[in-house]
Amino acid sequence: MPELRKDPIVGRWVIISTERGRRPTDFASEPVRPVGGDCVFCQGHEDKTPPEILAGRSAGSAPNGPGWSYRVVPNRYPALRIEGDLEPAGEGLFDRMNGVGAHEVVIETPDHAASLATLPPAAVADVLLAFRERVLDLKKDARFEYVLVFKNHGEAAGASLEHPHSQLIATPIIPIMVAEELGGAAQYYRMKERCVWCDIVRQERREGRRQVLEANGFVALMPFAPRFPFETWILPTRHQAAYEDSGGDELRGLAATLGEFLRRLNGLLHDPPFNFMLHTAPLRDGLAESFHWHLEIIPKLTKVAGFEWGSGFFINPMPPEDAAEALRG
Amino acid sequence: MPELRKDPIVGRWVIISTERGRRPTDFASEPVRPVGGDCVFCQGHEDKTPPEILAGRSAGSAPNGPGWSYRVVPNRYPALRIEGDLEPAGEGLFDRMNGVGAHEVVIETPDHAASLATLPPAAVADVLLAFRERVLDLKKDARFEYVLVFKNHGEAAGASLEHPHSQLIATPIIPIMVAEELGGAAQYYRMKERCVWCDIVRQERREGRRQVLEANGFVALMPFAPRFPFETWILPTRHQAAYEDSGGDELRGLAATLGEFLRRLNGLLHDPPFNFMLHTAPLRDGLAESFHWHLEIIPKLTKVAGFEWGSGFFINPMPPEDAAEALRG
Repeated sequence: MPELRKDPIVGRWVIISTERGRRPTDFASEPVRPVGGDCVFCQGHEDKTPPEILAGRSAGSAPNGPGWSYRVVPNRYPALRIEGDLEPAGEGLFDRMNGVGAHEVVIETPDHAASLATLPPAAVADVLLAFRERVLDLKKDARFEYVLVFKNHGEAAGASLEHPHSQLIATPIIPIMVAEELGGAAQYYRMKERCVWCDIVRQERREGRRQVLEANGFVALMPFAPRFPFETWILPTRHQAAYEDSGGDELRGLAATLGEFLRRLNGLLHDPPFNFMLHTAPLRDGLAESFHWHLEIIPKLTKVAGFEWGSGFFINPMPPEDAAEALRG
Repeated sequence: MPELRKDPIVGRWVIISTERGRRPTDFASEPVRPVGGDCVFCQGHEDKTPPEILAGRSAGSAPNGPGWSYRVVPNRYPALRIEGDLEPAGEGLFDRMNGVGAHEVVIETPDHAASLATLPPAAVADVLLAFRERVLDLKKDARFEYVLVFKNHGEAAGASLEHPHSQLIATPIIPIMVAEELGGAAQYYRMKERCVWCDIVRQERREGRRQVLEANGFVALMPFAPRFPFETWILPTRHQAAYEDSGGDELRGLAATLGEFLRRLNGLLHDPPFNFMLHTAPLRDGLAESFHWHLEIIPKLTKVAGFEWGSGFFINPMPPEDAAEALRG
C-alpha cells in the first residue's frame, strides 16, 4: 500500500509508492565519469575565468596562475549581477526588481577527475571553509538577505562543466523554500520551545531506521517524507542556526562525514548525479533558536513530471528506511 | 541586467536571466518522435491494460476490444490505490496516512504516432470531455478532495510510454501548489473583489506582449513570472472556477486553442517534450468567485538544478515577452 507522509517542517506531503517493488540498487544510474578535454577550470587555464576572489595557494604562487588547491571566481554567466540597485517597481498587477546579487563558482580542486568523494578530507574541509569565508564576506553587502551554497554534480543534475565545482548565489530576497522552513520551524518553536531539527535528530537516533551514519559531530539521515530516492540531510548534532558560525574543527568534521556519505552513495549507486544545497539561516535575521542549518543532498535518479509540477506532491518510489539501510550496510 | 519577477498569485519570485543571449529557437531540443514497437496502449492490446473505465467506441464494438477512439483505464502501477481508508496516524513527530486515491490513464488515440497537435480537433475534444467525465465521477467518492489531470509528453518530461496518453490522480488532500493558488487568489479577492486571473487576462490583452493567441473563448498567454522557458497558461476568458462545469462547446473551443498552441510550439521548437497540468477548483470547496481554472503547459527545455531545488527560485533564461512573440509570429 502506498503511503502519504507529511514533512513536519514545511507541511509538504509526499507519496511513498513502492508498487513496482524496486530494490535500492535498481536506482543506479548512468555514472558521472569525467572525460576531460579542454576545461576552463583546469590548472593553467586561470585566464579563462574571471579573476579569483579567494584561493588556496602554495607559498609563492601568484593569483590567477597555477599553484592552487581551490579557487573561488565570479561565474562568467551570472544568474544575478553584482552591480546596481534593486529599484523595485510595479507594472500593473506585477512586481519586479533588478536582478542584483552575486554568483560565484568554487573550483574544488585542480584535479579534473577528482570529486568530494575521492579528495582527501583536508581538501574537502578547505572547500567548506571557503564557503564560510565567502558567506561572511557577502554578509557585509547590505543588499543581500541570503546566500545559497549548492552543487550540481553530473549533467543530469544540471552541471554544465564536469570539473569538480560548487556555486553560491547571494540573493536580495530570502528564497521561498528557506522562508517556508523558517516559518514552519518558528511555529514549532512557539509550540514546543524546541528546535524541530533537534527533535528530529533525537527521534531518528532513537529509532535508527532512517539514520545512515553519525560521526564527528554530524549525522546523515533520510527525512521521513523525502521528495526523492536517497534524499539525505547532514546536520550538526549540536544546535546551530548559521553555517558561517561553524568553527574549523566542525567543518573538518562535516568534511569527513560528507566524504564518507558520498563514498557509500557512489558504492551503492555507481557515481550517480546529485545536487546538494546548504540551508542556513538568513544573513540578517537572528532566528538562532528555531533554525538549524543542514545540508540537503538529492541524487538525481528519477524524473520530475507533470504530477509533481502541477501538485507539489512528489511520488517517491524508495522508502527512506530501505534507502538508509542499504547505505548503512 | 537580469530581472527578478514575482508571481502575483503565489508570491513566488523568479529570475529572468538573459545573460547568455539565447534566441527562442536556441531552446529547440531533441524532438519527441515515436519509434513504435510493442506497445501496450495500441489497438489489439486491450488485454494488456486493466479493464477500461470509459471509452469512445464505434457502434457495436465490445469493451476491452478494438474499435475505440480513446480509452480510460486504471494505471497498472498506480501512485495511489483505490481500496481502503486513510487511517491517519502519528509516528512521534511525523504524520502519515494510507495512500488512497485513484490513478487513471487516458489513452488519447489508437494512433501510436499521433499527438494532441496532430489529432483532429474533435478527437482532442473527446479527450477533454473524458477528463470532465472522470472528474465528475471521482467527485462522487467522498474520500477525494482533488483530481489533478496532467500529461507527460516525451521521455525527458517523465513519460515512460510514448503512445499518446494523459493521466489523472485523485488525492485525499488538496495539493500544496493548488492550495497556494487558492490562498493567493482568495487574498486578492478579499482586497479587490475581483478574480486575479480575470485581472491578469484583462491586463495581458491590453498589453499584448505576453499573449500568444486568443480564440474560441480561450486565451493562451505566458505568465509574467514563468519558471520555465515557454511556460504558458491557457484560460477561459469567461470566469469559471471548475473545469468540470465547462460545457461541450467550451471544451471544443479549448481543444481548438490547445491544438493550435501545440502546433506553433512544435513548429518553433521541433516537437519538444512537455508537461501540462490542469489547475481546477477543489472537488468540495466552492471558491467559485476567486478561483479560475487554467491549463499550465511547461516545455521541458532546461534542467532544474541545485539552486532551484534549494531555493524555490527558478532561473529562466527566456523572457516571456520574447517567447510569446516567437509563437505569435
